Amino acid sequence: MQQYFIDKFEVSLNEHIPLSELDSHHFINVMRAKIGTEIKVVDRKGFAYVAKFVENNEPIALLEIVRSVEAISIELPVNVTIACGLSKNDKVDTIVQKATECGMNEFIPLALKRDVVKWTGNKVTSKMERLAKISKAAAEQSHRLVVPLVRDLHTLDQLIKKANSFDVKLIAYEETAKEGFHSQLAEVFRQLEPSQKVLMVFGSEGGLESNEVEKLEAAGFLACSLGPRILRAETAPIYFLSALSFSLELDKL
Amino acid sequence: MQQYFIDKFEVSLNEHIPLSELDSHHFINVMRAKIGTEIKVVDRKGFAYVAKFVENNEPIALLEIVRSVEAISIELPVNVTIACGLSKNDKVDTIVQKATECGMNEFIPLALKRDVVKWTGNKVTSKMERLAKISKAAAEQSHRLVVPLVRDLHTLDQLIKKANSFDVKLIAYEETAKEGFHSQLAEVFRQLEPSQKVLMVFGSEGGLESNEVEKLEAAGFLACSLGPRILRAETAPIYFLSALSFSLELDKL
Repeated sequence: MQQYFIDKFEVSLNEHIPLSELDSHHFINVMRAKIGTEIKVVDRKGFAYVAKFVENNEPIALLEIVRSVEAISIELPVNVTIACGLSKNDKVDTIVQKATECGMNEFIPLALKRDVVKWTGNKVTSKMERLAKISKAAAEQSHRLVVPLVRDLHTLDQLIKKANSFDVKLIAYEETAKEGFHSQLAEVFRQLEPSQKVLMVFGSEGGLESNEVEKLEAAGFLACSLGPRILRAETAPIYFLSALSFSLELDKL
Repeated sequence: MQQYFIDKFEVSLNEHIPLSELDSHHFINVMRAKIGTEIKVVDRKGFAYVAKFVENNEPIALLEIVRSVEAISIELPVNVTIACGLSKNDKVDTIVQKATECGMNEFIPLALKRDVVKWTGNKVTSKMERLAKISKAAAEQSHRLVVPLVRDLHTLDQLIKKANSFDVKLIAYEETAKEGFHSQLAEVFRQLEPSQKVLMVFGSEGGLESNEVEKLEAAGFLACSLGPRILRAETAPIYFLSALSFSLELDKL
């Protein structure tokens, strides 16, 4: 069943609600919905409902809330923010899409020294809008109950300033792997408690400079290995979130 | 340090060896190597060496073996084959690239009933050649010691026939997740022993038909959940390999 997010904090049974213009277009023209088609909608509080297509007020599809959907645990038990350096081409798009599927709650694009690309001027705005769209579409596709927030571009200093609001702060750092220390991540996962806020920093293709790592470590970040193989910039966040999901959602049962 | 595979079973110190024409082109023209540049080479047995660029016999770069590289454990402790339905666009390319980074040993393209695309005639040959190239390049990039083998296109019956050679046979099946059974994969990982052969089957975007799952289960395959969120066809194998790597390489230390 197709899922869409609706921009209301609360809905009630039998209420008629409109889909956004963009979602209406997708629903009517791409999914080829007919009057009577049922879909799943999620409100801004993360409650899910089955809704029925009752009226086509082009360009808006009008839905009627039919019943609430029993809450099953779709969201990771902890709240994860991924901060990533600016990789080339569409790699940041890929990271946001896949990390959304894998349970990320927030994404922070991070300007690092070794980034091969820079986001400046109009590029920042258009990139942000694009990433927000990707995050929403991926959240709908993977039936998430929240749309991950895409934050503004941060410098490392800006990230460090706001890092105090996180319970656990991590860095994916290849050099840690080279030294053969592979156990930190499992140790961190074992100590996580429900609803804690986790921030993990990833470099772009260029990686992190050692003095960037030192700055982060001085601010309480822990450098972690993601295993013995070298992962591409866009693969590392997926590895991390998959390992976290496995550890907290499949292994601790 | 850049890594290339060399097509020899054994090399000795001070031996002069040529890179393949394709790798020579990459080394000289893309990496802009100069005489004296050192790189890492891996022979067909998986032994790694530092080699020095000694002569440019265009189009071939000639290297001298300088020293052997101490073996560190780069490969997963078990041998993993990923069999995937035929997804659209470049999704199978993505799976082979990322699964290679994450430690896969063999890839089997699998023709399933709900596949949106079919591979027929010349398409099969060109797809296979393309996937073999992707696997080799990704293995070099992630400093693997083996290049994952890309097998011929299999039907489900062909796959089942050869499944007896595997110690553990798994299916990624969404319906298992919907029923709330999330613990099988962790249980399987706990029982794995070094060097065992693992085969995991993934559907394409269309998923697996229930009678395909029944056929596999009758042949000893175990259906497993990859967590509560719906993953795209190209994300599921990465989740699986990341979870396996975390479990065997980071958590069991």
